[in-house]
Amino acid sequence: MTIREIEQAASRLSSVIHRTPVSSSGTFSQMSGAELYLKCENLQKTGSFKVRGAYNKIAQLVQQGGISQVVASSAGNHAQGVAYASSALGIQSTIVMPSGAPLAKIAATEGYGSQVVLFGDCYDDAYQKALELQETTGAVFVHPFDDEDVIAGQGTIALEILRDLPTVDAILVPAGGGGLLAGVALGIKQVNPRIQVIGVQAQGADAIVQSFNAHQYIATDSSKTIADGIAVRAPGQITTQLIGQYVDRMVTVSDDEIAEAILLLLERTKLVVEPAGAASLAAAINRKVDLSGKRVVCLLSGGNIDMGFIQKIVERGLVARGRQLQFHTVLPDTPGTLCSLTGLLGQAGANIIMLQHDRRHSDLHLGETVIQVACEVGGSEHGQKVLQLLRKNGYQVVLE
Amino acid sequence: MTIREIEQAASRLSSVIHRTPVSSSGTFSQMSGAELYLKCENLQKTGSFKVRGAYNKIAQLVQQGGISQVVASSAGNHAQGVAYASSALGIQSTIVMPSGAPLAKIAATEGYGSQVVLFGDCYDDAYQKALELQETTGAVFVHPFDDEDVIAGQGTIALEILRDLPTVDAILVPAGGGGLLAGVALGIKQVNPRIQVIGVQAQGADAIVQSFNAHQYIATDSSKTIADGIAVRAPGQITTQLIGQYVDRMVTVSDDEIAEAILLLLERTKLVVEPAGAASLAAAINRKVDLSGKRVVCLLSGGNIDMGFIQKIVERGLVARGRQLQFHTVLPDTPGTLCSLTGLLGQAGANIIMLQHDRRHSDLHLGETVIQVACEVGGSEHGQKVLQLLRKNGYQVVLE
Repeated sequence: MTIREIEQAASRLSSVIHRTPVSSSGTFSQMSGAELYLKCENLQKTGSFKVRGAYNKIAQLVQQGGISQVVASSAGNHAQGVAYASSALGIQSTIVMPSGAPLAKIAATEGYGSQVVLFGDCYDDAYQKALELQETTGAVFVHPFDDEDVIAGQGTIALEILRDLPTVDAILVPAGGGGLLAGVALGIKQVNPRIQVIGVQAQGADAIVQSFNAHQYIATDSSKTIADGIAVRAPGQITTQLIGQYVDRMVTVSDDEIAEAILLLLERTKLVVEPAGAASLAAAINRKVDLSGKRVVCLLSGGNIDMGFIQKIVERGLVARGRQLQFHTVLPDTPGTLCSLTGLLGQAGANIIMLQHDRRHSDLHLGETVIQVACEVGGSEHGQKVLQLLRKNGYQVVLE
Repeated sequence: MTIREIEQAASRLSSVIHRTPVSSSGTFSQMSGAELYLKCENLQKTGSFKVRGAYNKIAQLVQQGGISQVVASSAGNHAQGVAYASSALGIQSTIVMPSGAPLAKIAATEGYGSQVVLFGDCYDDAYQKALELQETTGAVFVHPFDDEDVIAGQGTIALEILRDLPTVDAILVPAGGGGLLAGVALGIKQVNPRIQVIGVQAQGADAIVQSFNAHQYIATDSSKTIADGIAVRAPGQITTQLIGQYVDRMVTVSDDEIAEAILLLLERTKLVVEPAGAASLAAAINRKVDLSGKRVVCLLSGGNIDMGFIQKIVERGLVARGRQLQFHTVLPDTPGTLCSLTGLLGQAGANIIMLQHDRRHSDLHLGETVIQVACEVGGSEHGQKVLQLLRKNGYQVVLE
């Protein structure tokens, strides 16, 4: 493969996809010690880079002729990428998803014009079913990563970064199956070998990192990470080979580091990024590689995150930042005492989220009752003031 | 004022601010009947357009000489805009905020290099204090909207839209004090009077809409909306005059419409947008004006939204979309019954968020207990299946 395939892919894609921004971030520059930029593929059509490879693949199938439909298996971004690309090219598509796939993802894939088939319990079942459909229907199977045309499509991001920021020193790229990383590394290194390309994977799904370090293909038995988009046990064969050839280094990040990066992206840069997409930034701000003084692009690969998951991440962040105060205290079990406590909380500007009043606690004296409270405060400083006020008024407060 | 002032502002700003994207949105095009684009000022430095006006103002003060510091009053985006602009120009700044200002906003403003003074209970108190500081310290007061240099700064957005989408038919712009709307309308109309400019305000804070419709300046006694960025009782005098001259129409949106737009922006376009910033899109998708077949830009003015507020909006959205199922049911008050119920929920793939077991309900028969449950489901279809399974197993389920 050469940069020519990527250039051809770029010209196929130019009128189909968004030219996503490369934006500088003062906050993340400070945190990473680098001059840090974000390549926002979360703002890409379908919410991730996957549409690039899928379109490049299917467009060539159409050009070669004799194809009327494609099939793919995915519970995630590849599904939406294939669905969107097929519709844009006037080709029918069938996507096999595991039965437990989130309804939101099914709806999004159908919304882009695909027929969705639910089958089996996991990705592997869906994959087998898709291969079977390929046999029986004559549809062409579109692989999510281990395909040169798909890789070339993802590699178009390299050209955009080179155009928008030709003086870049290093690029951090999330890697699961490796299609994105292989494409970007090939595109970058064939143009400018001086630019470092660093792959980032979640700790709990590091097959591609093991493969890179051992200089041979390694698949793992299990993967466990919140980063569903890169939770891959068996990376690609083609991608692993290209990554070995073009990538400088591979690092891993923890789920906690990813979750914190997602929250920071929401708060500071106003971007919704999925866990896989935030892995690159997590590596930079946790200084997994020395980037100090360098001009660095973190590739945010996608933004398709479940709203329920966002809620959990935000909640965890609010507690961690002292925005939620959780405590219990013991009151005399007489009328009016709850009113005094809640009066103080109101006076202190603390907003009650949850309050439980329970006098059936085994270690309580008779005539006492325990009150459990969670409330919203402005921050840890405000939380301290609330606690002080309660203690000054005679409450024994125990933080939870 | 003419387009020349805006052009000069643009050249002052060019190396300081982000050139924010104008992106097309298939989802919102469908919902609005227009060919819809988003101008993403939520991705602007400091998280809102306010930095444009502030920088343009302060840069000219510096150029004129004899100024060493500025002062402003704000509990929101103007604070961060002035702080950032002052630091960039090497000028000291003091921002007066009401005492109850969120710690996150205080920290952000201090983070951009301003000194923050907390004073009084509301914006008006802070404003008076800022004017007082202007007297005593000789600092120059930077008005958030009623100032020609500020208006010209905000107007630079018009030039960017004209450059990125010269064939635009209509632009929807949030309006509070009116600085953004006045600047954009002036910039657009002086270049191309064919392009419609529509102002959008929240229903609960419509002084500027009343002024526009009555062809005279009107301030209101109160404002009540979740859109804190445009919750203005007294719009500007200069802005009101310019809006009367250049704006085609003003419309209002409800807080519910704004909240739904925020959720859709998070889910579908991966953008964090604050309530004021989402008002323009809310007007388009609720078809407050006829935009069918037109090429339309909705200006998303900012993204500085409290994470606690995001959490509430997401939670409301999850319930509305059938992602949370809330019900109660009555069980025989004997050991093992709770296990049977929770076993069924687990089997159905419903994840318990809250469960309350209470046998002290007044309308229960002796020997019965009421169980209140909230659980996470994949969507309304999945929720229906969970309910069916419970009912098939003899549970009387009452939705809440």
